[in-house]
Amino acid sequence: MAETRIRPAQDGDFDALWPILREVIRAGETYAIDRDMTRAAAFDLWMKAPHATYVAERDGAIIGTYYIKANFAGGAAHVCNCGYMVASAARGQGIAAKMCAHSQDAARALGYRAMQFNIVLESNQGAIRLWQKLGFDTVGRLPQVFDHPKLGLIEARVMYKWLVPDRAS
Amino acid sequence: MAETRIRPAQDGDFDALWPILREVIRAGETYAIDRDMTRAAAFDLWMKAPHATYVAERDGAIIGTYYIKANFAGGAAHVCNCGYMVASAARGQGIAAKMCAHSQDAARALGYRAMQFNIVLESNQGAIRLWQKLGFDTVGRLPQVFDHPKLGLIEARVMYKWLVPDRAS
Repeated sequence: MAETRIRPAQDGDFDALWPILREVIRAGETYAIDRDMTRAAAFDLWMKAPHATYVAERDGAIIGTYYIKANFAGGAAHVCNCGYMVASAARGQGIAAKMCAHSQDAARALGYRAMQFNIVLESNQGAIRLWQKLGFDTVGRLPQVFDHPKLGLIEARVMYKWLVPDRAS
Repeated sequence: MAETRIRPAQDGDFDALWPILREVIRAGETYAIDRDMTRAAAFDLWMKAPHATYVAERDGAIIGTYYIKANFAGGAAHVCNCGYMVASAARGQGIAAKMCAHSQDAARALGYRAMQFNIVLESNQGAIRLWQKLGFDTVGRLPQVFDHPKLGLIEARVMYKWLVPDRAS
């Protein structure tokens, strides 16, 4: 299988990104994003609002994407948040793991010292296992926080990883 | 002592609100808000971005304020977030408790079913005790999440309360 390459996203990539985002958004089963979100709003959410956005490419085709943004401001501005999406045809091939490892390096390069996932759904066990494997701790549990289209109200985890060796200020 | 009345904020209230917000923001010891935030940005943050903003008045003077906004979108849009600030001269008089009780009613009226505080600093024991008393559970702990100007990197809690009797979907 060809090598997967991760690079910064450019505005022109959104034609290829939108089908990936749209499928995940319309399903409404993994992200706390409005299921009816328009393409223009998704462009703002994924490409404009974040601090940085990346795409994963293989054989010239975009098969995944992630963003990094500050999760808080002020005294907690050293904590970032990321979101990852993989094209359905490319799942189960380690693309999310590769993007998450890349995002931790990218976050450090941008000056962040920790990464927080605010709402990892209990139904998304694949993601939970992957984030655990990549060093994220479950630091919180939000009861009934997500109304899943098939499962009803379910719990989600808050997951967190300190990214730099020195924990001191 | 005269009665404290809570009512929806109007744009014209911001002349009275800004000194309250400014003191809290500049101190940078309780909220994850940029300490150098301008008045215009604070207006957007407190008056425009939220779903609703309220003020607490006593003897015709504004002594406190709070906002309600959605904490998530999509499947978690039933969870709101609030922020409360009390003028330094009016602290220790139960104004925050009164605003939090009011905010829970207001949140229910706006259709929310849960309220989440994302970053309650461990140094802010008064707030932690108050939110506990008002029914909030500690559902998460974020290590080293806040760089306190006096204490360095400190932990914060995620606190959460279900607002409606029926937990079923």
